[in-house]
Amino acid sequence: MKSTILSRRDLDFLLYEWLDVEKLTALDRFAEHSRETFDGVLELCEQLATRYFAPHNKLSDANEPTFDGHAVALVPEVKEAWDAFAAADLMAMGMDAEIGGAQLPMTVAQAAFAWIYAANVSTAGYLMLTVANANLLAHFGTPEQIETFVKPMLAGRFSGTMALSETQAGSSLADITTRAEAQPDGSYRLFGSKMWISGAEHEMTENIVNLVLAKIPGGPAGTKGISLFIVPKFLADGTRNGVAISGLNHKMGQRGITNTVLNFDGAVGYLVGEPHRGIVYMFHMMNEARLGVGMAAVALGYTGYLKSLQYARDRPQGRPLGVKDPATPQVPIVEHPDVKRMLLAQKAYVEGGLALALYCAKLVDTGGADDNSVLDILTPVAKSWPSQWCLEANNLAIQVHGGYGYTREYDVEQHYRDNRLNPIHEGTHGIQSLDLLGRKVTQNGGASLAALGERVAATVTAAAGVAPKLAEQLDDAWQRLVAVTGAMFASGDVEAAMANSAVYLESFGHIVVAWIWLEQLLAAEGRTGDFYDGKRQAARYFFRYELPRTAPQLALLESLDRTTLEMRVEWF
Amino acid sequence: MKSTILSRRDLDFLLYEWLDVEKLTALDRFAEHSRETFDGVLELCEQLATRYFAPHNKLSDANEPTFDGHAVALVPEVKEAWDAFAAADLMAMGMDAEIGGAQLPMTVAQAAFAWIYAANVSTAGYLMLTVANANLLAHFGTPEQIETFVKPMLAGRFSGTMALSETQAGSSLADITTRAEAQPDGSYRLFGSKMWISGAEHEMTENIVNLVLAKIPGGPAGTKGISLFIVPKFLADGTRNGVAISGLNHKMGQRGITNTVLNFDGAVGYLVGEPHRGIVYMFHMMNEARLGVGMAAVALGYTGYLKSLQYARDRPQGRPLGVKDPATPQVPIVEHPDVKRMLLAQKAYVEGGLALALYCAKLVDTGGADDNSVLDILTPVAKSWPSQWCLEANNLAIQVHGGYGYTREYDVEQHYRDNRLNPIHEGTHGIQSLDLLGRKVTQNGGASLAALGERVAATVTAAAGVAPKLAEQLDDAWQRLVAVTGAMFASGDVEAAMANSAVYLESFGHIVVAWIWLEQLLAAEGRTGDFYDGKRQAARYFFRYELPRTAPQLALLESLDRTTLEMRVEWF
Repeated sequence: MKSTILSRRDLDFLLYEWLDVEKLTALDRFAEHSRETFDGVLELCEQLATRYFAPHNKLSDANEPTFDGHAVALVPEVKEAWDAFAAADLMAMGMDAEIGGAQLPMTVAQAAFAWIYAANVSTAGYLMLTVANANLLAHFGTPEQIETFVKPMLAGRFSGTMALSETQAGSSLADITTRAEAQPDGSYRLFGSKMWISGAEHEMTENIVNLVLAKIPGGPAGTKGISLFIVPKFLADGTRNGVAISGLNHKMGQRGITNTVLNFDGAVGYLVGEPHRGIVYMFHMMNEARLGVGMAAVALGYTGYLKSLQYARDRPQGRPLGVKDPATPQVPIVEHPDVKRMLLAQKAYVEGGLALALYCAKLVDTGGADDNSVLDILTPVAKSWPSQWCLEANNLAIQVHGGYGYTREYDVEQHYRDNRLNPIHEGTHGIQSLDLLGRKVTQNGGASLAALGERVAATVTAAAGVAPKLAEQLDDAWQRLVAVTGAMFASGDVEAAMANSAVYLESFGHIVVAWIWLEQLLAAEGRTGDFYDGKRQAARYFFRYELPRTAPQLALLESLDRTTLEMRVEWF
Repeated sequence: MKSTILSRRDLDFLLYEWLDVEKLTALDRFAEHSRETFDGVLELCEQLATRYFAPHNKLSDANEPTFDGHAVALVPEVKEAWDAFAAADLMAMGMDAEIGGAQLPMTVAQAAFAWIYAANVSTAGYLMLTVANANLLAHFGTPEQIETFVKPMLAGRFSGTMALSETQAGSSLADITTRAEAQPDGSYRLFGSKMWISGAEHEMTENIVNLVLAKIPGGPAGTKGISLFIVPKFLADGTRNGVAISGLNHKMGQRGITNTVLNFDGAVGYLVGEPHRGIVYMFHMMNEARLGVGMAAVALGYTGYLKSLQYARDRPQGRPLGVKDPATPQVPIVEHPDVKRMLLAQKAYVEGGLALALYCAKLVDTGGADDNSVLDILTPVAKSWPSQWCLEANNLAIQVHGGYGYTREYDVEQHYRDNRLNPIHEGTHGIQSLDLLGRKVTQNGGASLAALGERVAATVTAAAGVAPKLAEQLDDAWQRLVAVTGAMFASGDVEAAMANSAVYLESFGHIVVAWIWLEQLLAAEGRTGDFYDGKRQAARYFFRYELPRTAPQLALLESLDRTTLEMRVEWF
């Protein structure tokens, strides 16, 4: 029976038939690898996802972490899954060999980890945060910090958190007030509190390595005065550090992972890198985390799609149009055009999102100047597009299930709740839109936009003979996007240009995913069979039903509409 | 302080300044009423909502009904609210005086009940089902049935349910198998089971009056062989009837109201009206229930809007565009254009939805042939449009709150979960779209569509001097809708025409709500002040950001696109 967690067939198509990741083994970093090692890790993650992660997904949703004032309790299955993942040596799958990593391409590592996200996004969160934390310290930490903190994290003995936000400064890091006071021994003492810290407290690991943004008194104002510190739960001598929680947040979804305020009352911290460079280090991690959030959103959308597809195949209900005789048997609902529409939409969103996420991961792997430029501009899209549209896929997965989908006896309502976090954390939709329109589109004289445009143009050219109408449709949409972008900034009315940044992000995202679908169509060209016919039909769906949504959005943007700007607060 | 449950100011505007409900008192049925009695019931419902319903909304979500194998337990606050509502004589507020009703116009009764929905949609569900049940029996029951069942329901001593669906026949009533066997004494014995029965079991009332669809053996096949029965929980002699639950469904939202399978094992039932007419009776109720679902969706959207507005006013975060100095104070997030956009969108959805719901209620009150014709075609829209867009409002309310909105410490995540049921029950979005495109648009030679068109045209004419651009935009959209509708059916390809019924429903809905917004704009014309400026700006928002969404939808419909039809099941 096919897995309803994720589709290995689609992963193989994207990795081997489209992105040709085997060629990455020509690069020095990946020279030890081969299709066999790639397949091995994909297989391993599928097995772990199926055996350890999926089975407790509902359990840890229904039994969220509890805090008795001293310690946090998790259902034991979380640690079993954590241990199994660590024991398989997967924490360091993408990291350098010199610290024990397997140096797998990010593309393959992300594809493999998608199984874990799809099976259980909450338990996956502990892993993802720990890997991101270790990765940051591996880049910017001292050899001693790597020995003391990174290696135990990669062994699964320690876990990690990322502590950025504060209650009064959610999206505005410039306004954080946690302070770090230098001590004579070179360490620091931290005072303040952090909000929304996932994985902040539990007994699953021997120690928790908190990476904390704080200001050293006397430093520059705003984000330029922010430094980064390691603040472990336990100090080297085994004593408890001055970092504690006072309670837990109770979320709509992703309930299996702790999330809370973390208080620092003279907690010992160790500076990472140089003072006042914390934001730079954190954004190194943050960009990868944003790609990770996008992948998590895709994975949740994908598993919901597969489950609603299976439900639609199995569920008899109603009859074809025109057949009124109640004596005839009911047909599976997958036969109804409106159900097909909801399944095609899901397929287009989740397969398009997965392809985009893996495309971005491959840009990290190849890492040329042009790749970096394209990755820069795609990162806000790769984070926000799946967060919006794969959530919509989960919405449709519920709808396909009808009333059953609204109950906790089925899986899809949890995926919908879990996925709703993704447009919020690691930079909200609004923050991503400001990053795209206010920074990435214009940076280096528009070089990133131009670099992406060259790739879109190459796809259009390649598709001209195969799918001329779709190629033309994409070309028109891209040219229109570029023209509107130019008109917005040419106006000189920056306020009006930025006012609809979220609309810009949405239309940009849909055009990017149309391009990604045309790429998939090209990869499927000349191949026969149900799988490839499905790809072709989903591409067609995206160009007929989805890409046209951008026309009114671009018209609105071009008009530099001031409706929101002119809305007065007192009119609400 | 302003209520964050609902806006009395907006209700007053819609009822008195737009719909002019005072004029309804010229009709015989409402002759005893006046602005004072209308205001009285609005005030009363606001007070009950504030005092009895809102305070336990979170409580009954966190402590959903439990079943110990014998009885279902609810938190006691549910019964307190139920009793307060009944004690205020509100159960019968819209019903005939001869059975103890207040004969309030449906418009006013719906507006008043919106407070209850907004405060606590789960507890409101017990009331709504009981009123709908009583209303059906008041129309089609015998005097004895009215005495035995309806009057105790209106007094709050009994409650009611509506039992239609079965596990194997959700949207397909033709396939129900519950059977009713005639007994020598004129009663029936029912065998079978019903699914998704809200309010099916609890100890809150002395008795529960289940209205059950079942087939009398030997009757016609399909929906034409369905009859309607009263199956009380307790019989007249106090013994328990053969109707029982085996457990409870556990829902994503609306957790405060029981929902379950209801099993009939030789349960005594009493026929309502004539045999085989059950569907006709049920649809009398169903059409009102669909308007009620639309209103519930509006109410949840509205309260989420008001809460996110208050949050946005109170929450300082970030600075205006171009202000980088972290020494300057942060501004309330309501000042940010993207937050204004999310608030304006919510305002446009919820105020547009509320206006549509009340417009439809007034059609019930006036009840002329033309009114009925317009009501017929608007009913699927009034059910589905708020279920989609006021859910989207809740989505935006979460986003305005950022991380806080994702926690159960705030209200909006529950509204989002609660509202997600509305596109499913009382006929899914897909069912509504088939009703609209497959029945209402073409019925009586297109008379309903034409009747609605005349009203739209009248609004366009009235607005030509006031808001010529918007009037023209609406006129164009309506003409285009009519032309596309004609082209779809002229093709003769019914299969292709019906394949995208859900897209048709969406575009139809947005054009209807644009019309409703132009109506509101006209009602605000010549009036000054923040409230009216807000109406004008929200109307402008709807025409700039929302109505243009319909252009690509109508183009798709006109093309009779066959993407979904040609998708093969094996390609998924």
